[in-house]
Amino acid sequence: MIYDLKSRLRNHRALVPPLRGVGFQYGFNQQQVDPWVQYWTEQYDFKQREKFLNKFPQYKTNIQGLDIHFIWVKCGKVPPGVTCVPLLMLHGWPSSVREFYEAISHLTTPTDGMVFEIIAPSLPGYGFSDGAVRPGLGPAYMGVIFKNLMNRLGHKKFYIQAGNWGGIAANAMVTMFQKEVLGLHSNMLIILEKIGVEVQTILAGVKAAMQIQSNEYDPILALVVEETSQIHILATKPDTVGIGISDTPVGLMAFLLEKFSSWARLEDRSLKDGGLTLHFTREQLIDNLMIYWISNCFTTAGRLFAEAFSNAYRILRIDDFPTEVPIWKLEAKNEKVFVQPLNMKKYPNLLGVTKTEDGGTFFALELPKVFAKDVFKAVKAFRKFHEKNKICKY
Amino acid sequence: MIYDLKSRLRNHRALVPPLRGVGFQYGFNQQQVDPWVQYWTEQYDFKQREKFLNKFPQYKTNIQGLDIHFIWVKCGKVPPGVTCVPLLMLHGWPSSVREFYEAISHLTTPTDGMVFEIIAPSLPGYGFSDGAVRPGLGPAYMGVIFKNLMNRLGHKKFYIQAGNWGGIAANAMVTMFQKEVLGLHSNMLIILEKIGVEVQTILAGVKAAMQIQSNEYDPILALVVEETSQIHILATKPDTVGIGISDTPVGLMAFLLEKFSSWARLEDRSLKDGGLTLHFTREQLIDNLMIYWISNCFTTAGRLFAEAFSNAYRILRIDDFPTEVPIWKLEAKNEKVFVQPLNMKKYPNLLGVTKTEDGGTFFALELPKVFAKDVFKAVKAFRKFHEKNKICKY
Repeated sequence: MIYDLKSRLRNHRALVPPLRGVGFQYGFNQQQVDPWVQYWTEQYDFKQREKFLNKFPQYKTNIQGLDIHFIWVKCGKVPPGVTCVPLLMLHGWPSSVREFYEAISHLTTPTDGMVFEIIAPSLPGYGFSDGAVRPGLGPAYMGVIFKNLMNRLGHKKFYIQAGNWGGIAANAMVTMFQKEVLGLHSNMLIILEKIGVEVQTILAGVKAAMQIQSNEYDPILALVVEETSQIHILATKPDTVGIGISDTPVGLMAFLLEKFSSWARLEDRSLKDGGLTLHFTREQLIDNLMIYWISNCFTTAGRLFAEAFSNAYRILRIDDFPTEVPIWKLEAKNEKVFVQPLNMKKYPNLLGVTKTEDGGTFFALELPKVFAKDVFKAVKAFRKFHEKNKICKY
Repeated sequence: MIYDLKSRLRNHRALVPPLRGVGFQYGFNQQQVDPWVQYWTEQYDFKQREKFLNKFPQYKTNIQGLDIHFIWVKCGKVPPGVTCVPLLMLHGWPSSVREFYEAISHLTTPTDGMVFEIIAPSLPGYGFSDGAVRPGLGPAYMGVIFKNLMNRLGHKKFYIQAGNWGGIAANAMVTMFQKEVLGLHSNMLIILEKIGVEVQTILAGVKAAMQIQSNEYDPILALVVEETSQIHILATKPDTVGIGISDTPVGLMAFLLEKFSSWARLEDRSLKDGGLTLHFTREQLIDNLMIYWISNCFTTAGRLFAEAFSNAYRILRIDDFPTEVPIWKLEAKNEKVFVQPLNMKKYPNLLGVTKTEDGGTFFALELPKVFAKDVFKAVKAFRKFHEKNKICKY
C-alpha cells in the first residue's frame, strides 16, 4: 500500500500554474501540491504514524449488518473520588477519529473528580467502518447504530461529544433517545432538516451564488455558497466525484485539505499555502488523509451527504420535536460557515454556550486542551442538572 | 502518452459497489467504470482516432498573448450559384470541438445555394487553446478573442453557431459586436448575468436543494439543483477539483460522462449505464475525453465557470443591452436543465425557434444532420433579413 501510494503521489500528472496573484481563492493552490507530496513521500514516517494511530485500543463489532470500527479507551481502575463517565465521540467530514487523538489524552486524564471512558466510532462509510449497501443510511439511522453500539458496550446511558456530521447524528440521537443520552456537547449545533433554517444557512446565498468575488453582495451568504460546493456535489453526485478522488492521492489531498484551510480560517484563502500549517501539523493532516486513503472510503463517506439531504431523512422531521437532553454548545471563534442562531424551542435545556477566543471547525484537532476542558465543564454541568432532577446514575 | 494513460486506466483503485437498485442517481455508476476502461484500453483505436480527429485542417494563432487552436475548413472553389458563408462555431463544457465533427461534414456540403466556411476554435483553456494566466478571462473577454480571430482570418462579418459556454460567449458577442455578427444560431440561449434569471434558472431550486429524492418539491427546480453541482464546484473551487480529476482518467471519464448522460436525457439517470450509448457511440465520447486528457485542460477549462460567475463579468451588464443581431434558437426536446423563457427585449430580432422532436444538450453530436439542417435554415433567414435591410454583403 505504501509503495503504491508513493508511486501514485510521485507520478501525479503535470499541474497547472495558479492564476497570477491567487492563493486558495480558486481552491487548493496547485503550486502547493509538490511540497505536500515531497513531505508525504519523503518525511512522513509511515511506521511511526502507524504506531501512533494504534496507540488507542480499537475494535470492530457488527451492528445492523455493518462492521463498525471504534476506539475504546476504558477508565480502568480510577482513584477514589473519581467517577468514570462514558463519552461517545462523533467526528464529521472530511475528518475521522484522528481528529480526537490529542483530545482523548486529555479526556482520559482524571480532572476535577471525573474521567472519561471514550468510545469514538468511525461513522458508517468512514475509515474502517463499513458503508451502507442500500440507500437510506442517513444521520438518524446512524444514531440508531451508535446507540446500539453504546448499549452493547454496557452503557444504557451516556454522554455525547460531536461536531459536523457527528453533530447532525447526535442531534437525531438527543431527539430519539432522550432517556439514554445524558447530555450533548456539540461544536456544530446545526438543524439540518428544518427547511427555513437550511435555506438560511446553506442556500440563501442565492444572489451571491457561485461567484468568487462577492463584495457586491451579502458577504456572509456569499461565503456560505463559496464554501459549500463540495457539499453540493457530494449531496447530489457522490459516486461521480468518488470515482475520481478515490483514484488519486493528490486529488484526495486537495479535496480534503482545502477544507482544513477555509473551514479553519476563512481569511486564509488569500494565503499562498492556505495557512494550513498555521493551525495543524503536516503530520496531523496526513494522518487523516491516510485514514481515507487506506480504507478507500471517500465514496462511501460522501454518500452521507446524499442521505442527509434526502426527503427520506427530512420526512423524519427530527427538528419538530424538542429534546429534554441537556445541551452545551461550543462556538468556535472562526466557525463562519456552519453557524445558526440558537434554537431554544428545540433545546429547552441548553445549559451553556462557550464562545472560544480562537479555533475553527476542527476544534478538537486544533486546540485539544481547550476542547477537553470545555467537555469536562459541560459534563459537570450535565451531571449537576441530572442530580437536581435525580435521574442521573453517573 | 497512450502507454501512460492505459496504465493509469488499468491501475485504477478498487471501486465501491453502487448502492442497491441505484443507476446514475448518485452519479456515475461505479459498476460501469470497468466496461468503459476495457473499451478505452482494448478497443478504442488510438491511431485511427488520431487520424479521424485530424481530418479537418487545424491551426494555432496567438491572440492577446494566448495560442488559440481552431479548426478551419475553407470553402475552396464553390460551384456557381453557391455562396460561401463564414460560420464561427463555439462549443461548451464538458465538450470540445469534437462535438462538431459530424455536423461539419454536413455544413461543408453545399445545400440550397449555400455552404459554410467553418472556424471552430477551442475555447481558451479548453483542448489545445492556452488558458489564461491571470483572473478575468470570462465569456466577454473570450468574445473579443473570437472576434479578433475572425478578423485575422479575413472575416469582418460572420455568423455564429453556439451552445453552452459557447452560447454565453456568443451572447456577449452579439451584444458587443452588433455590426460584425450577422446572426446567431444558438442551442443554449441563456442569459447568465441577469441576477433574476440566474436565480430562476440555476439557484432558485433552493427549497429542494441538495436532495436526491425531490418528489416533495418543485421537480423542475429540484433537478436544476441536482444537475448543477459540478457547476457550483467549478465556479468556486476549480483548482481543487482540477488537481484530482486531471490526475485520473477514470475520474475524468466519470466527471464528464455523467453529464453526457443526464444532460442528454434526465430520465436516463435511472438506468444502470446512464443510457450513454443510446445517444452517442463510445468512440465519440472517448474522443472528447481524449481531448481533455491529452491537453490536460480540466483545470483551465473549469476556471471559466469561476470567471463567468464573477462580479467582474456581471458588472459588464451584457444583458442590459438589447442586440439588433438576428437570432435563431434551437430548443432541444430533452434540454431540461438550461432552459429560460425567451427574452424578446434582449433579442428583438429573434427570427425563429426550432423545437426539435428529439435530442438533448449535446445536439450537434447527437443529431448532426438535424442540427446542420437547422443551421442552414437559420442562416438563410438571417441573410433574407439582411437583404431586406440591405446591410449584408454575403
